[in-house]
Amino acid sequence: MSNFLLYAPDELKEYVQRFLVRHEVPPEDAAIVADVLITADLRGVSSHGIIRLDTYYGNRLRRGLIDPRTPISVVNETAATLSIDAGNGLGHVAGKHAMLRCIRKAAEVGVAMATVRNSNHYGIAGYYAMLALENDMIGISFTNSQPLVAPTHGRKAVLGTNPIAVAAPGLNERPYVLDMATSIVPIGKITVYDKMREPIPAGWGVNSDGLVTENPGDVLRGGALMPLGGTEELRGYKGYGLAMLVDIFSGVLAGAGFGPEVGSVKSEHPTNVGHFFAAVRIDAFHPADEFKMDMDRLIRMMKDSPKAAGQERIFIHGEKEFERYEQYTREGVPLLIEVVHSLEQAGEEVGVPFDLHPIGQQATLEEE
Amino acid sequence: MSNFLLYAPDELKEYVQRFLVRHEVPPEDAAIVADVLITADLRGVSSHGIIRLDTYYGNRLRRGLIDPRTPISVVNETAATLSIDAGNGLGHVAGKHAMLRCIRKAAEVGVAMATVRNSNHYGIAGYYAMLALENDMIGISFTNSQPLVAPTHGRKAVLGTNPIAVAAPGLNERPYVLDMATSIVPIGKITVYDKMREPIPAGWGVNSDGLVTENPGDVLRGGALMPLGGTEELRGYKGYGLAMLVDIFSGVLAGAGFGPEVGSVKSEHPTNVGHFFAAVRIDAFHPADEFKMDMDRLIRMMKDSPKAAGQERIFIHGEKEFERYEQYTREGVPLLIEVVHSLEQAGEEVGVPFDLHPIGQQATLEEE
Repeated sequence: MSNFLLYAPDELKEYVQRFLVRHEVPPEDAAIVADVLITADLRGVSSHGIIRLDTYYGNRLRRGLIDPRTPISVVNETAATLSIDAGNGLGHVAGKHAMLRCIRKAAEVGVAMATVRNSNHYGIAGYYAMLALENDMIGISFTNSQPLVAPTHGRKAVLGTNPIAVAAPGLNERPYVLDMATSIVPIGKITVYDKMREPIPAGWGVNSDGLVTENPGDVLRGGALMPLGGTEELRGYKGYGLAMLVDIFSGVLAGAGFGPEVGSVKSEHPTNVGHFFAAVRIDAFHPADEFKMDMDRLIRMMKDSPKAAGQERIFIHGEKEFERYEQYTREGVPLLIEVVHSLEQAGEEVGVPFDLHPIGQQATLEEE
Repeated sequence: MSNFLLYAPDELKEYVQRFLVRHEVPPEDAAIVADVLITADLRGVSSHGIIRLDTYYGNRLRRGLIDPRTPISVVNETAATLSIDAGNGLGHVAGKHAMLRCIRKAAEVGVAMATVRNSNHYGIAGYYAMLALENDMIGISFTNSQPLVAPTHGRKAVLGTNPIAVAAPGLNERPYVLDMATSIVPIGKITVYDKMREPIPAGWGVNSDGLVTENPGDVLRGGALMPLGGTEELRGYKGYGLAMLVDIFSGVLAGAGFGPEVGSVKSEHPTNVGHFFAAVRIDAFHPADEFKMDMDRLIRMMKDSPKAAGQERIFIHGEKEFERYEQYTREGVPLLIEVVHSLEQAGEEVGVPFDLHPIGQQATLEEE
C-alpha cells in the first residue's frame, strides 16, 4: 500500500502561490511563503510544510485574521538595528524582509539585528538563518509561539516551543544549521503517540498537576510540554531559560506578544507573534576563508570522533535535513495521502483545485 | 561542627588582588579578576570562585603559562564589531575589556559583538553579560572550554561545557540572568558524587563506550559528560548543538582554539580559550522603560502561573543567585574549611599569607 504520494517541489511551490494569490496575497509575497513552506517539506520538516497551508494561513486569511498585504512599517532603525511592525501580515514575508535587511546592514557595519512585532507564524526558523550563508555570514533567527510549555515547577503552558535557529557556513562541509524548539519535542509528536495509543517517554510532558506523565492524552488535555532538559534533575530549567531567552528577544524586545499572550493559530484574534533576526559578517572578525576551513575542521572533529557502542555515525546539525533535501529534490516531496486529501478539500473550497500529478508513490518514510 | 567559615567579600577581593599582584598582574587587572571570582562566590557559584585562585590562575602564572600583563591587541574592528587577541593573558581582564567596548559601541550603533582569542578561563560567563544591565542593554557572553562533553552518538569528550549567558533588565523585578553550561551538569558535580560513592542520575554522563552510566567514576575515567537533554530520546542533540553554537562563536569566529584543541587548565601549554560578547541597546528597538515593564510582566506571568503538585515557587533565571548574593553580602561568603586550608597553603608558598579573619561560621550550606 502506498501511503505517500510524491510531488515535484516546483509544482508544489507554484500551487501554494496560486492558493495564496486567491486570498489576495501579492504574487511576490505568495512566492516567499511558498518557498518557506516547501523548503520545510524538502528538509523533512513536514510539520511546518504545505500541511499548514490552509489551517495556519488560508483559513485565517479568509476570516480576516491575517492581512494578506503584510503592510510592513518601520518602528525604529539605526545603522545596525531594525524594528518593524508586520501589520498582522504573513510572518514569512515580514521575516524574509527583516532578515534580508539585517544582511544588508551587516554588510555595512559588521553585525545587525532586527525584530518584528505584530506578525504571524513564519514557518521554519532555520529558513531565515540560512539566508545569511551565501553572504559569508552567520544567521540567527528566533520566534515566539503559542503557549505549550510549562516552566520548571509549573503546570500550565505559559511559554511557546520558541525555536532557536543558527546557521554557519563551512567550506567543503555542509553548513551547520541548528533549528531547534526549546521544548524537548513539538506538540505534534505528542499527538502522534496519542493517536497510536502509545505511551510517551517520561520527560516529554507533564499532566494537569505538573507531574511527568507517560500518557500523551494527559499532556494534550490540560497538561504541557516540558522544556529541553526535562526534569529538574536533568536541568530542565535550562530549556525553560532558553524559551525565556527567545521570548525576551522575539516578544519583549520586539514589542510583540509574549508568554501566554501569544495567540494560537486557532484564536479568533491576531496572534501578535514576534520574531528576532541577526546577521554576523564573518570577515568583520576573522577572514571568511579561514573561518570556513575551521568550520570544516570542527565538523570533522565531531564526525570523526569515536562512536558510542552501537552507533555508526555522528551527525552535524542540519546534516540529515540537507540529505533529505537532496533526496526529495531528486525524487519528489512525499505527502501523506491524508494530507493530499485535505489539500484537495481546501483547494475545492477556495476554488484553487489541488490538481497536481504525483510523480511517484511510496509506502513509508525513512525519517527518524 | 562548622564546615564553613564566613568571610567579608571585600576582604576576599582585596586578598585575591594582593595574591595576583604578587604574580606581576597589574593592580587594576588584579582587581578585575578579584571582582569576577568573588562575585561568583557571592552568587553561590563557588566552583568558579576563589577556590580556583591558585589552580586555574596563580599556578599557571608562576609557570609562565598565562601572561600576567594581558597584552591585549586589536585584530579587527568596525563600528559594531571588535576582534581582540588577549595575548594569553587573563580571561577576566580581556573579557571585561571586550564587553565594555561592546557596550560603548552598542551605545553608538545599537548593537555590537566582540570576540576574544588566545585567552584563558574567564570565570562565570554571567558576570560579563550582567555588565550590560545598568546601561539598559541586553548582555550576552559565551566561552568555550576544555573538552568534557561527548556529541550525541559519540563516546569521547570533544566539546567543552561551553556556557551561554544572557542578562536582560527588569524594572522592579530582578534581572533575568541565564548562565548555563550546555552540558547537563559541570564535571565538578560528577566528582562530588564520585567522592561520596553515590550513583549519578542516568543521563548526566557516559562511560568509555559512550553508554549512559550511573557510575560517576566511569564518567571521570574515560567517559564524558552528556549535553543538555541527555539521551537522543530526550533530544540531547539539541544540547550538543548549543555546545557547537558556543564553539562556533567563541572558538571559530574568534580565531581561538575550538573543539578538543581548547587547552585544559592542567595543560603545559597556553589554553587558547575563546570568548564571545554582545550588547544590545534596548531603545534601538523599543523604549527601554516599556521593555523593562514588559520584562516585569513576563517574569510575573511565570512566577504567578500555577505550580506543579508539591512545588511552591517558580524561579526566574538568576533569582536564586541574587538572593544568595544579598545573603552572602550581609553575612559573609562561606568557604569550606578545606578551601581555606588550600588558600592558606598556596598563600604561604607564594608569600601572600591568607590571613583574613572569618566573620562567622556555619555547619552547612543551603544551596541546591
